[in-house]
Amino acid sequence: MKGLSILGSTGSIGTNVLRVVDAFPGRFEVVGLAAGTNVEVLAEQVARHRPRIVSVADEGALERLSRLVDLSGLRAVTGREGMVEVATRPEAHMMVASAVGALGLVPTYRALEAGKDVALANKETLVMAGELMLARARETGARLLPIDSEHCALHECLDGRKTQDVRRLILTASGGPFRNRPRESFESITREEALAHPTWRMGPKITIDSATLMNKGLEVIEARWLFGIEAARIDVLVHPQSVIHSMVELVDGTVLAQLGVTDMRMPIQYALSYPEKWEAAIPGMDFTKAMHLDFAPPDRAKFPCLSLATRALEAGGTAPAALNAANEEAVAAFLDGRAPFLAIPESIQEVLETEPKTAASTLEDVLEADRRARERARQILARRTPARAAL
Amino acid sequence: MKGLSILGSTGSIGTNVLRVVDAFPGRFEVVGLAAGTNVEVLAEQVARHRPRIVSVADEGALERLSRLVDLSGLRAVTGREGMVEVATRPEAHMMVASAVGALGLVPTYRALEAGKDVALANKETLVMAGELMLARARETGARLLPIDSEHCALHECLDGRKTQDVRRLILTASGGPFRNRPRESFESITREEALAHPTWRMGPKITIDSATLMNKGLEVIEARWLFGIEAARIDVLVHPQSVIHSMVELVDGTVLAQLGVTDMRMPIQYALSYPEKWEAAIPGMDFTKAMHLDFAPPDRAKFPCLSLATRALEAGGTAPAALNAANEEAVAAFLDGRAPFLAIPESIQEVLETEPKTAASTLEDVLEADRRARERARQILARRTPARAAL
Repeated sequence: MKGLSILGSTGSIGTNVLRVVDAFPGRFEVVGLAAGTNVEVLAEQVARHRPRIVSVADEGALERLSRLVDLSGLRAVTGREGMVEVATRPEAHMMVASAVGALGLVPTYRALEAGKDVALANKETLVMAGELMLARARETGARLLPIDSEHCALHECLDGRKTQDVRRLILTASGGPFRNRPRESFESITREEALAHPTWRMGPKITIDSATLMNKGLEVIEARWLFGIEAARIDVLVHPQSVIHSMVELVDGTVLAQLGVTDMRMPIQYALSYPEKWEAAIPGMDFTKAMHLDFAPPDRAKFPCLSLATRALEAGGTAPAALNAANEEAVAAFLDGRAPFLAIPESIQEVLETEPKTAASTLEDVLEADRRARERARQILARRTPARAAL
Repeated sequence: MKGLSILGSTGSIGTNVLRVVDAFPGRFEVVGLAAGTNVEVLAEQVARHRPRIVSVADEGALERLSRLVDLSGLRAVTGREGMVEVATRPEAHMMVASAVGALGLVPTYRALEAGKDVALANKETLVMAGELMLARARETGARLLPIDSEHCALHECLDGRKTQDVRRLILTASGGPFRNRPRESFESITREEALAHPTWRMGPKITIDSATLMNKGLEVIEARWLFGIEAARIDVLVHPQSVIHSMVELVDGTVLAQLGVTDMRMPIQYALSYPEKWEAAIPGMDFTKAMHLDFAPPDRAKFPCLSLATRALEAGGTAPAALNAANEEAVAAFLDGRAPFLAIPESIQEVLETEPKTAASTLEDVLEADRRARERARQILARRTPARAAL
């Protein structure tokens, strides 16, 4: 049995991780669960899986949780320290990093330091501190396995191949809900429009990132660290049907692609079972029906977040951490109705242009850049009033 | 330098093999060339590559060749024995089997027996005697590398993977020129219509096989032997753009695909360089332009050759050899204007239903079945008069 710690267990990835665990009885022991404040869902998970340790956001959430489920015989902790304790629990062989945003950074770092394999759904971790994470993983021999569908596809296409045989990585992008919307009407984009993703059901933060194409920008940075391929050799291709999850072009001109259903349990099972292959817990692709796939290069003028991400990656140091922080603040402001859609790329660009770029030699450097960029982003966003149409 | 013997050097595959050889100076020595009667093209090849041995169909062809090019210092041979001598030449590390039809059977068998790697463009060889060929390759450690684009794609997708991780192989098919033509008008199909393949430029025999979908049926049989996957787990999918060259579905439901330009030099380079990867000699895929890919299941009622092939494979023994022989006779009759398009599947079916199925334990069993089936096919075809519209 493989011991699993799951950070962000009540979110969209976390709940699907537990569905995959349920589909393979006897394969996994759920050692630890960490969530924020969604104690109702967490209580059910605790009752079903009886982990050794559970962590919530704060004492208030813990109090509410204890009223919903029997916590006797398991350790209950809170806050960021609690998450780290769940992440580094000795019985865990693998940590699933599905906490949203920068929150997952420190626990993931500690888990890699402790030699745990990490199934990574939290792309912000590699965006902020890719070089540091990879260094820790190399030192301890821990594996970093991507859970998002694009990097899972790249991982599978690259598996067993030499890096020198790779010409470039091609990340596919659904294009989000605004692929065909004219740029002129972007000012009036509402929260509801932006949350209506055409192919994937995901949490709100990543859904907005998909609408701005920042998600793809973050994935370029993630791919750079996961696969050791420089940014200039990572392309993005819009593919609205999301059937091809990503591709690898080899030096001889052949292209390998991974296809699959748009169900998060697919990449989750890949990461949890790697290097083994298990009979699918979900139905595969249906080739008995006619299928049409479209591909087109992305419109970088309409979706500036994509180029902002590449620019931050090329700038190096703490620039990607600043990009990520500015993006998290802008998306939160948009979701709260405090900023219009177009304020997202605009505020990120301003943060990148005004924040000093420093070296990212330690986790503290990264966290400090994150704090500074957030503060700057909040100042910039406070100046923006949301457009009427977005209210 | 890798020593190459090329059987069928003046055909569509053979000339492209030599273009790949030319694109990588210093990598290959052309040890032997075997062709039929196209001495004009062969003379140029001999002058350029100065092989150690050259073979043509007969003494007449040799006489004509000797008038076109200086043959001094190289061995010149003829006929089937000549082909075997080219195939088994000691200086050759790899034999390229690109002679059309059943003609390649014996030389390929002898090459495998002599421990030569075989780059196989001649699918009839595995269709007729797959089990025998694989047994010889296993004994001597010779590699069988497919040159057609579909099996090259499968080979690349399967490379380094375990057979037990494979759920099924999915061969893509362009669907040929008659994909959208109503079945009612098949009786009037002309030679010129059938020779107008939508995506690939190939020789006449394989182009007709593509129009009847027999080519895909033969490929199912070929895949069964090359990859050790039974027929029930080999599917066919119509994909008119021929961009995805084939796919492999794994047990966890993910699907791996190989994509590429429709240029035979791609699979040729793959086979000639395997297991290495060399910088492409031809331009790769262009993802800067919009691209649309369509997929649909094949119409087995409209194209009965597909199911005839699967049925022959399941019958086993000499049935696939009989299928292949009947098909070669029917295609030749159609190309000569001696039989209409619909006589191809009809005569093959009649041969399969009337020829006794026997064991294929030796090459002689296979050759005998081939002879018998050809004779039967000729009798059947002689009864058919070509439809007026086909003349």
